[in-house]
Amino acid sequence: MPETLFKVDLTKPMHEQEMPGHNRWHPDIPPVASVKPGDVFRIECKDWTDGQIKNDDNPNDIRDVDLSVVHVLSGPIRVEGAQPGDILVVDILDIGAFQEHEWGFTGIFAQENGGGFLTEHFPTANKAIWDFQGIYTTSRHIPGVKFAGITHPGLIGCAPSHELLAKWNKRERELVASDPNRVPPLATLPNPENAVLGGLKGSEFEQAAAEAARTVPPREHGGNCDIKNLSRGSKIYFPVYVDGAKLSMGDIHFSQGDGEITFCGAIEMAGYIDLHVDVIKGGMDKYGMVNPIFKPGPVEPRYSEYLVFEGISVDEFDGKQYYMDAHVAYRRACLNAIEYLTKFGFTREQAYLLLSCAPVEGRVSGIVDIPNVCCTVAIPTEIFEKDIVPV
Amino acid sequence: MPETLFKVDLTKPMHEQEMPGHNRWHPDIPPVASVKPGDVFRIECKDWTDGQIKNDDNPNDIRDVDLSVVHVLSGPIRVEGAQPGDILVVDILDIGAFQEHEWGFTGIFAQENGGGFLTEHFPTANKAIWDFQGIYTTSRHIPGVKFAGITHPGLIGCAPSHELLAKWNKRERELVASDPNRVPPLATLPNPENAVLGGLKGSEFEQAAAEAARTVPPREHGGNCDIKNLSRGSKIYFPVYVDGAKLSMGDIHFSQGDGEITFCGAIEMAGYIDLHVDVIKGGMDKYGMVNPIFKPGPVEPRYSEYLVFEGISVDEFDGKQYYMDAHVAYRRACLNAIEYLTKFGFTREQAYLLLSCAPVEGRVSGIVDIPNVCCTVAIPTEIFEKDIVPV
Amino acid sequence: MPETLFKVDLTKPMHEQEMPGHNRWHPDIPPVASVKPGDVFRIECKDWTDGQIKNDDNPNDIRDVDLSVVHVLSGPIRVEGAQPGDILVVDILDIGAFQEHEWGFTGIFAQENGGGFLTEHFPTANKAIWDFQGIYTTSRHIPGVKFAGITHPGLIGCAPSHELLAKWNKRERELVASDPNRVPPLATLPNPENAVLGGLKGSEFEQAAAEAARTVPPREHGGNCDIKNLSRGSKIYFPVYVDGAKLSMGDIHFSQGDGEITFCGAIEMAGYIDLHVDVIKGGMDKYGMVNPIFKPGPVEPRYSEYLVFEGISVDEFDGKQYYMDAHVAYRRACLNAIEYLTKFGFTREQAYLLLSCAPVEGRVSGIVDIPNVCCTVAIPTEIFEKDIVPV
Amino acid sequence: MPETLFKVDLTKPMHEQEMPGHNRWHPDIPPVASVKPGDVFRIECKDWTDGQIKNDDNPNDIRDVDLSVVHVLSGPIRVEGAQPGDILVVDILDIGAFQEHEWGFTGIFAQENGGGFLTEHFPTANKAIWDFQGIYTTSRHIPGVKFAGITHPGLIGCAPSHELLAKWNKRERELVASDPNRVPPLATLPNPENAVLGGLKGSEFEQAAAEAARTVPPREHGGNCDIKNLSRGSKIYFPVYVDGAKLSMGDIHFSQGDGEITFCGAIEMAGYIDLHVDVIKGGMDKYGMVNPIFKPGPVEPRYSEYLVFEGISVDEFDGKQYYMDAHVAYRRACLNAIEYLTKFGFTREQAYLLLSCAPVEGRVSGIVDIPNVCCTVAIPTEIFEKDIVPV
Repeated sequence: MPETLFKVDLTKPMHEQEMPGHNRWHPDIPPVASVKPGDVFRIECKDWTDGQIKNDDNPNDIRDVDLSVVHVLSGPIRVEGAQPGDILVVDILDIGAFQEHEWGFTGIFAQENGGGFLTEHFPTANKAIWDFQGIYTTSRHIPGVKFAGITHPGLIGCAPSHELLAKWNKRERELVASDPNRVPPLATLPNPENAVLGGLKGSEFEQAAAEAARTVPPREHGGNCDIKNLSRGSKIYFPVYVDGAKLSMGDIHFSQGDGEITFCGAIEMAGYIDLHVDVIKGGMDKYGMVNPIFKPGPVEPRYSEYLVFEGISVDEFDGKQYYMDAHVAYRRACLNAIEYLTKFGFTREQAYLLLSCAPVEGRVSGIVDIPNVCCTVAIPTEIFEKDIVPV
Repeated sequence: MPETLFKVDLTKPMHEQEMPGHNRWHPDIPPVASVKPGDVFRIECKDWTDGQIKNDDNPNDIRDVDLSVVHVLSGPIRVEGAQPGDILVVDILDIGAFQEHEWGFTGIFAQENGGGFLTEHFPTANKAIWDFQGIYTTSRHIPGVKFAGITHPGLIGCAPSHELLAKWNKRERELVASDPNRVPPLATLPNPENAVLGGLKGSEFEQAAAEAARTVPPREHGGNCDIKNLSRGSKIYFPVYVDGAKLSMGDIHFSQGDGEITFCGAIEMAGYIDLHVDVIKGGMDKYGMVNPIFKPGPVEPRYSEYLVFEGISVDEFDGKQYYMDAHVAYRRACLNAIEYLTKFGFTREQAYLLLSCAPVEGRVSGIVDIPNVCCTVAIPTEIFEKDIVPV
Repeated sequence: MPETLFKVDLTKPMHEQEMPGHNRWHPDIPPVASVKPGDVFRIECKDWTDGQIKNDDNPNDIRDVDLSVVHVLSGPIRVEGAQPGDILVVDILDIGAFQEHEWGFTGIFAQENGGGFLTEHFPTANKAIWDFQGIYTTSRHIPGVKFAGITHPGLIGCAPSHELLAKWNKRERELVASDPNRVPPLATLPNPENAVLGGLKGSEFEQAAAEAARTVPPREHGGNCDIKNLSRGSKIYFPVYVDGAKLSMGDIHFSQGDGEITFCGAIEMAGYIDLHVDVIKGGMDKYGMVNPIFKPGPVEPRYSEYLVFEGISVDEFDGKQYYMDAHVAYRRACLNAIEYLTKFGFTREQAYLLLSCAPVEGRVSGIVDIPNVCCTVAIPTEIFEKDIVPV
Repeated sequence: MPETLFKVDLTKPMHEQEMPGHNRWHPDIPPVASVKPGDVFRIECKDWTDGQIKNDDNPNDIRDVDLSVVHVLSGPIRVEGAQPGDILVVDILDIGAFQEHEWGFTGIFAQENGGGFLTEHFPTANKAIWDFQGIYTTSRHIPGVKFAGITHPGLIGCAPSHELLAKWNKRERELVASDPNRVPPLATLPNPENAVLGGLKGSEFEQAAAEAARTVPPREHGGNCDIKNLSRGSKIYFPVYVDGAKLSMGDIHFSQGDGEITFCGAIEMAGYIDLHVDVIKGGMDKYGMVNPIFKPGPVEPRYSEYLVFEGISVDEFDGKQYYMDAHVAYRRACLNAIEYLTKFGFTREQAYLLLSCAPVEGRVSGIVDIPNVCCTVAIPTEIFEKDIVPV
């Protein structure tokens, strides 16, 4: 068994852990441990909300979630010899739930709390609890469905440099400034409230908290990519921006569909990740790397029959034609799938939750046929107890 | 062998065929043949440009393509008993090139001709010719690559009703009107020039040509969806809008990547499609159908190792932060992949063409992490002669 | 389209073809055509019985088949530069039925005619006719089943040298001699009756016919291996024993299960094969080759749910314990599967035929646990209209 | 986390465990725990040799292994309501190594100790130790290879009835009696020495030990099937012979190739299995069940490129022709693969061990082409660091 370099006590919030992690991105957060290229180690993670969501039938905790504390991350881990311009190669050797906490949750965020992909259609908070049985999961809130998860960290990446952080802050401030009165704002800017920055203290903490990037968006370093295929056996190539790389991670998902559409949309859980790291010196230049690159692992669940729903970039409200808008097209594909699933006994909320967390594939099928993008969402039919194919 | 209900002579343009097809969508185009539910039959198709592109090394034919004649379609086929509100179930039993024309082309459209997904980066026309050897293809213009195609019709669907056609025209006119001086326009509106409308003649032809929809965008009926997975063995459920359904198809692709990013981006070819049809009476209501639904077939090429590139919705020009723009995110993923492939000896044009036509997977990975969408493009590593994994 | 180097007229027996093939293995049969390494070409093949079986409901043609004429092969094809000790690399680029003959047959051979794997249980001749619809097949004789074929040549290989032929004859004669009065004999020895030896004539024909090997068993050169995975896209490495390699093939199967258990057990058909050839000089020594090696292609049908039956080496007659007998174990696994399928409305004959020709996987699961081998046979559940999983 | 119903202390032999399991099959062994249909629980298992093999480089422990103590099994578990004639449905929900013992071993048994499938060629004991890193394993004794395991219990099944046990003993005695002086004997008959029979004591122990069946061969109840595909997510249907079913299991394999050819041929390990059980009343009759049936799970490692070796039933010693001998054919296929692998830097012993424990597929390809069976063994090329395809 690999050594556990980051432990969590699930009964305590992240800032009270013996070795606190962080919930903002900043280059100055000191490493909690140091490894060498070739090392194998285990990292434990809390769920992304720091334990705000309960295993019960009441969605009020989803409605009332405090987003200033997310995402709680484990790390940073320093990798000896990794320098800016290198590639950090990370193998996800294993990932799983803690044996005493074999459950997770999927939430529909309330519109007033930011909502999700279909928030105009689903403005109210909702929640499904999932129980794990080995590789499978089922939910008392969505009967008739069972599937194997493609478990993965929703969020993983290296610390930004000061320069990169400044670039993030600048462009995100400019976006917010383009519509400054919008509620919610177009991006979440640095916010010292409830910031957890590992071992930083005093004035160093103050300064970092004022400028540290929020964790929600994926960025050049990876971060909160929510890519379901970063699962067991995958190999990820990360850009390195600071000495020692400073790798952090969290937001473990037992399963997720492409898009993670309800926002809190994967099956969110606490758990562990076993990692192997290596370094490709000078790799960023050698391979022209901007964003991370990865190879999926060999043990993703294997389905052979899918039902696929199409969507185009014409909106569902007044039939307005959008120009090459993949966002609208994917939304229509998802809405078509949800409508279809209601014909088989699922509520609209159940269908929305299911599309968000089951192993569905969301594709950009055609993106050049002016003015319509065609997106598709593919649902494996084998996850349903009933046959859901049209007859 | 199934009976061939629509034959083409590749030496003649579509309007000179013994039984002309059509290149616009209109409910009044008379059927060329009639089948019963349960029937199996073969349809022959010209390539989408009606033979404008030659098997040579000069991309000027791509540059000079006349888009008023596209897409040339075979049909419509009347299905007895199919009525508005039904679902037409179409099985793609087989699909292939004509034995005497075992080649296809992929083009980068010039910016002045509408361009493609990355037209700002690739403004000049380019062309790759692909030779087929059974299930495989190779190109003298992109050495070092060989793959099995997921052959499919880029375009297939039933005729719209008059009402649906009117809706299409209204919304597309409104889009064009929103920026009326744009070159090229935001959508291609009805254009009688070079319209081919099957057996319509005289004033009926004139009226239909004036209002018939262009074939480029996918719409509620399916149409030019360019979904690579509508391949051998797939089963498609189409909404029916007119008596007899009036099924038409064309734009056969030997292979295509998700997005078909160079616009003329699949490996375009002439060929045949073997079909089986059936009808689900009243199916549209029964299943809440808006757009077509499908089940992919069981013989798509099977790869196990992919290299996946991520992109986020920050643009590549001045680093501007976009709000939840999947278009930008997928573009960045594609650009990242192109840049990477140049490190292995491909030109940027070769890499762009390859992403467009090889069996790559384009995914909407995360679409709720404000303000960044994360899209990915996955390339099977086994299509390359050389190993392209980072080391 | 590749040039067709061997054409067949399905209305005539092999010896009356304009360019006759052969139905025995002999090094002196002259090549019918010559190709160079790198060439692509098409070979047409009759079905293995030379057209003895009809598309009707009467199994008497199976009962009365004349085995002295099998297998009719197309070839030999000379490959320039191929010499003994080389490896001939053959790519199966494509394979299919003739468009005007889209059907095939599966037969249970009568016990008096040699029978099949379960001949004690199925002593009587039987037949199923299969109709092809693109990649799929169905049979009026086995309703409720539909599947995609893994089409392949049952028989393909290079000519033996005189030395190798002598070795074959010697060892097979010794086997027959070990039980000389057995009916049928333990092996089919050379038999000039109905021998077809391509262009050989006169005394050369007489001599060759007297010693030419029968085509039934697979041998060092490959030959009648009946390996279902030599399908589209596969690459086969053959040992070369004579100058020019002299490649021949036939016995095309639309589909077959591992073992081809009813003997005439695939879906047998006439058709064509498109090939690409190359040579690895000195490859046999370099790679220590005895028998052919191959890489399966990427477009085999993809199923994800199988029902798997086990068998052990205890016989079904009086429960006798055999010592490590994989033959008995696989027979028991097949019998268990047949018994099971009868619970879902299939007759025993239908189930036997189905196991023989559908894409089932037959595995040597455990072969060291004295005294029992454990073999398994895996049936894809998706080929059945009804759900066949136990409940 | 499911409740652990059977715990093991790896520092103690099975008979000294607080709750001893058993190493013989007998209906009278009392259950160690009782569950209800629908229950989920965990079972811990020692490795099959009861800890005789060490994590070192000396194969003497393999050479000197005491086979009278194998296989040590965990159980029996009583399932309430299960009665003779029912089917016990067992879901393998999860399976894995203990975190503090993430290693396993593969041994070549010495010929004097019974040997393995190729014992004439490999008469000497040998050993490879495998280290686990999440889903992957590597061995310091076989460098250049890394693969994901298809982890499974080599041995699982319900207790036989007295009648079934008597049948087993009778037929195995008859086999031994057919060659009574053979060394080793043709089967291992009941042997009270080192028998462990759970809670049985005194005269009950004496009587059961005298007649209890050894665990090596697979039999009607399943038992030591060594089927690599009984992995995570698989569902097994077992015949029930005694009240309460009495399910036992052990012999966990991190990975195994079809055939498990070196005898101690999987990657043998201690570990845990999470199970869910259910009962189909009267299922044996309903489905005509003789041996277990199963459905493989959805997360087996997924490879797409295999190199496949053929073998026929002609022996490798003096070229003797065997009649339809799948044992010889599979042996030749394995020998061909081993010879091939030596061309890439592996010793013959390494290649033999690798074929035995890596996820290779062993198939009965053709079993009706008199007198030769054709068997194949397929090796995924992606497990090798080097490219092993012929060039």
